[in-house]
Amino acid sequence: MGDGRTRFSRRGLLLGGAAAGAGAAGGALAHRWAAEPAPAPGVPALNGTLTVPFHGARQAGVETPPQAHGTFVALDLEPRTGPDGVRRLMRLLSDDAARMSRGEPALADTEPELAEVPARLTTTFGFGRGLVERVDAAAVPDWLRPLPDFDHDRLDPAWGEADLLLQVCADDPVTVSHAVRMMLKDTRSFARVRWTQTGFRRAHGSQAGGTTMRNLMGQVDGTVNPAPGTGDFDRLVWGGGGPGWMEGGTSLVLRRIATHLDAWDELDRPAREAVIGRRMDNGAPLTGTEEHDEADLEATDGSGLAVIADFAHIRRARTDDPDQRIFRRGYNYDHRDSGGQDAGLLFASYQADPLRQFVPLQRRLDELDLLNEWVTAVGSAVFAVPPGCEEGGYVGQALFGG
Amino acid sequence: MGDGRTRFSRRGLLLGGAAAGAGAAGGALAHRWAAEPAPAPGVPALNGTLTVPFHGARQAGVETPPQAHGTFVALDLEPRTGPDGVRRLMRLLSDDAARMSRGEPALADTEPELAEVPARLTTTFGFGRGLVERVDAAAVPDWLRPLPDFDHDRLDPAWGEADLLLQVCADDPVTVSHAVRMMLKDTRSFARVRWTQTGFRRAHGSQAGGTTMRNLMGQVDGTVNPAPGTGDFDRLVWGGGGPGWMEGGTSLVLRRIATHLDAWDELDRPAREAVIGRRMDNGAPLTGTEEHDEADLEATDGSGLAVIADFAHIRRARTDDPDQRIFRRGYNYDHRDSGGQDAGLLFASYQADPLRQFVPLQRRLDELDLLNEWVTAVGSAVFAVPPGCEEGGYVGQALFGG
Repeated sequence: MGDGRTRFSRRGLLLGGAAAGAGAAGGALAHRWAAEPAPAPGVPALNGTLTVPFHGARQAGVETPPQAHGTFVALDLEPRTGPDGVRRLMRLLSDDAARMSRGEPALADTEPELAEVPARLTTTFGFGRGLVERVDAAAVPDWLRPLPDFDHDRLDPAWGEADLLLQVCADDPVTVSHAVRMMLKDTRSFARVRWTQTGFRRAHGSQAGGTTMRNLMGQVDGTVNPAPGTGDFDRLVWGGGGPGWMEGGTSLVLRRIATHLDAWDELDRPAREAVIGRRMDNGAPLTGTEEHDEADLEATDGSGLAVIADFAHIRRARTDDPDQRIFRRGYNYDHRDSGGQDAGLLFASYQADPLRQFVPLQRRLDELDLLNEWVTAVGSAVFAVPPGCEEGGYVGQALFGG
Repeated sequence: MGDGRTRFSRRGLLLGGAAAGAGAAGGALAHRWAAEPAPAPGVPALNGTLTVPFHGARQAGVETPPQAHGTFVALDLEPRTGPDGVRRLMRLLSDDAARMSRGEPALADTEPELAEVPARLTTTFGFGRGLVERVDAAAVPDWLRPLPDFDHDRLDPAWGEADLLLQVCADDPVTVSHAVRMMLKDTRSFARVRWTQTGFRRAHGSQAGGTTMRNLMGQVDGTVNPAPGTGDFDRLVWGGGGPGWMEGGTSLVLRRIATHLDAWDELDRPAREAVIGRRMDNGAPLTGTEEHDEADLEATDGSGLAVIADFAHIRRARTDDPDQRIFRRGYNYDHRDSGGQDAGLLFASYQADPLRQFVPLQRRLDELDLLNEWVTAVGSAVFAVPPGCEEGGYVGQALFGG
């Protein structure tokens, strides 16, 4: 489906039209807008009006081209919340998410005007082991548990496993903030927030679509991602690695990876390129010239040394097993306080089965990847991402026998 | 000047062209872009290429239409940093800011590719009392000191006065993060970070230019702002309220205002409108129909009560003295952790003289403004914003005798 999910809402078009009028009358501040090319008839002028449908066979927010802003909120169910409570919670949240994805307020929205800019808002729900067990212990996918230990991890339980995940993404940070607030109101009787992680990528329209993101270390990050809409992608992400209720779903591995930028600064450019195995300027493998060139792991230099070293990140990440690949959809994070910078990557990967796909890859990186000197996983959680739902339904419905 | 500062960089155009090519070849992910209207010749397709000149008689980032993202970083000079050190620091930072505003890397940039998306990047420098005293004690403007006490303030020194402020704004969050990191590297020998505050507004292109922002309480916020480019604005903001080196400069009052959203939720819509004195839907005063209608403070309802109550925010904020106005350019902030939401407004106001303009207004709000029940200032700092500089110069030059 990929970008096929992007639609223009009726509300969005109406708003776009009204806003264009306001702009024309808006005086000095508006004139840059007036100088921009007039949109073609039927095409909205404003990014904020773009919508991604909530309803469908698969949840939005996976194949959706990554929005600029993403907030991941993890909740733990209250002890008193039984299977019926979970079902009611998912009904409420699915309704909220569907409405807000259209640029409409949630039912109990106290600031409905803040919902008027959908900006490709998606909400993607993930179920932790605790939630599935509470509903039906026999329905837990075998991979829905903490990842095995990795030597380089320094995991803080503050960013650990939880019962329910909300991945809320949009191109507008106000939209994300408001949507999260509205949905969390509806969770209050059922669950409590365990952690929140907020990240960002390039703004909508900063760069051409399809540009691979750079992380805060400056690396082109995610070149080998399978492309939504391909058979590869369908097998790797939607391939089905769980019980029946997960048919059409996938899994999310979310790891908080701290990057030690001050230490990274001490490396010069050739050293950085050797660590990664790619050029910093365009992300090409050191044996190639373009980002998407296939790396030649056999190539040697004049002295007979491997051009892409044994310790290089891309050599360690690479596999000959076409089924060991994952789909990455991460966000940068950057917090500062008087104590210095706390920055890194909210590494989010989707795959049909984390044990068969993510774990072998991470095992190779853990064993020998020089990049481990500059990055450390400090949080890790695994979620089952159920299939999508149709209008009137709710996410996770099949788990409840409905 | 207002929007007149916005220009398209040559680099930006080149990048725009190259990126358009990459988009066309970018496969499935790119096709939404291809469906957008082709830009007119000479007009860049990408927001990320837009630039705001750093050099000029006035610093950028004041009249500049607010970018989507803003980070305010406050530093304290090291005890060993003398006048000459401050001068060298401002030379370095001015050079960094000028280069990055054009989409070029700073001289010592370790991730130069992250600088390639200027996205209207501006860096605005503010001097605290400590910095000016260190250079020339006789040159301190009389208003460059902490604001007088207000009864409702609950100030945390963690967000208090500091020697040097960097206000870094752009439409792209990666650009802001990278620019802050690069400049802070250059400050390391001279100063240490005291605090960092990061905020956001609607994304570039989410809404029509000239739309007044809404804060996270849902209020239309900033309706009565003077408009850049008008005589009013020049008098109120650039009017000159300091010593000679500040000619062409202004002052910044930055207050961190926490909003108690959970308590605000308990108010219904009519109650909220009574507290503010404006309609929630379009920001019109309760005596009018459109946002920019003049409030009628004499109007009474059928029972003889004031339509805009005594305690209403807009009545308290209003003045008949045309010189007591300020120019607001704030950002929302929203942090969450397991302890709940920490959200509010980074209230940033520019005015020629904070004692004559900001203080009387805040005094009236402090005395009687029902909104004080739901908002609390937890941080406050005042900075002198020197005039801009020309190519080859640096911000604050006149303070150092040229």
